[in-house]
Amino acid sequence: MRKGEQTRQMILQRASVIFNQHGYKASSISEVMKATRLEKGGIYRHFDSKDELSIEAFDYMAKLMYQRYKQALSGKQGLMERLNAVIEVFENLMNENPFPGGCPIINAALEADDSYPTLLEHSRTAMDRLREIVTRIIQEGIQEEELVQEINSRELGDFWISSLEGALALSMLYGDKKYIQAAARHLLAYTQTKRLK
Amino acid sequence: MRKGEQTRQMILQRASVIFNQHGYKASSISEVMKATRLEKGGIYRHFDSKDELSIEAFDYMAKLMYQRYKQALSGKQGLMERLNAVIEVFENLMNENPFPGGCPIINAALEADDSYPTLLEHSRTAMDRLREIVTRIIQEGIQEEELVQEINSRELGDFWISSLEGALALSMLYGDKKYIQAAARHLLAYTQTKRLK
Repeated sequence: MRKGEQTRQMILQRASVIFNQHGYKASSISEVMKATRLEKGGIYRHFDSKDELSIEAFDYMAKLMYQRYKQALSGKQGLMERLNAVIEVFENLMNENPFPGGCPIINAALEADDSYPTLLEHSRTAMDRLREIVTRIIQEGIQEEELVQEINSRELGDFWISSLEGALALSMLYGDKKYIQAAARHLLAYTQTKRLK
Repeated sequence: MRKGEQTRQMILQRASVIFNQHGYKASSISEVMKATRLEKGGIYRHFDSKDELSIEAFDYMAKLMYQRYKQALSGKQGLMERLNAVIEVFENLMNENPFPGGCPIINAALEADDSYPTLLEHSRTAMDRLREIVTRIIQEGIQEEELVQEINSRELGDFWISSLEGALALSMLYGDKKYIQAAARHLLAYTQTKRLK
């Protein structure tokens, strides 16, 4: 990796931590300067504006999250093993792993609105991909005859994501894993009611 | 209501709309000045600081939300009618009712952390009360022998709140009610699996 590219990655990584914890609009370039130990010019050499840095930092985190899910699911067999792998990624977010501040996708989703259309668009794309991961697990469960045919896999997948994202928010609010663990238990129990074998 | 008190309420109401949509830290006093058509001094006559205004605006919204739930539940009989009343309040948040920007409790919960301890404390108290509403509905369902005795009512109540909050966030992200409606359907179906009659 060339030195310029290394610096760029370092800025993205440290800015991500700030944006994910405190929000894109609420964070200032001076906070990024402090975290990177760079002057303003050193940051703007790599990014045209705070907006560009924000969007690239979001995409950096969204990509990392996607890789996490792919890694967690790699080699997992069967519906329950796969669903538990998804739960584990959510639980790890609570442990500031891969970064502090919780799920970057729901954080950006809650911040972005019509006043910040680029972030809104990128949040939607990232949430689409996250929803797709669980929807596919359910589809595979139906194909592998673990689940009944009558399930609307997209809708059930969205229910999983909604519940886990909401439970992660509660767990972060109280600093207590029990909300995400309870959601996981109930989601698994509910999905069990739709099992064939 | 005295004139001073009227102005104070007007500031709280308009500041709430701004904070709930754009966040407490990301919103400026000049935005509140614009929305209230008051000079800075006119705002600081009623509130000592932006922090005080933020916390009071949050409490104003949290109280309004609590009243919404109480109104929605008033006169409702039986488990399903009560749970549907809670769902309706969530769906209305999607329609900017009682205010735009979604649920103020989860919004503040996601923004607040150790760097903003007062908002964190107030968010926790408001979330406690919200969780308590659904937990009580489930407890009543058990007492009225609609639900099996073995349910952990607090845990199931927390699952309801987690799922509805997460689904509301998705609905707001995509500008589509279907996520909250899907969550409602699945939560009701799951709760049905625990019914006695």
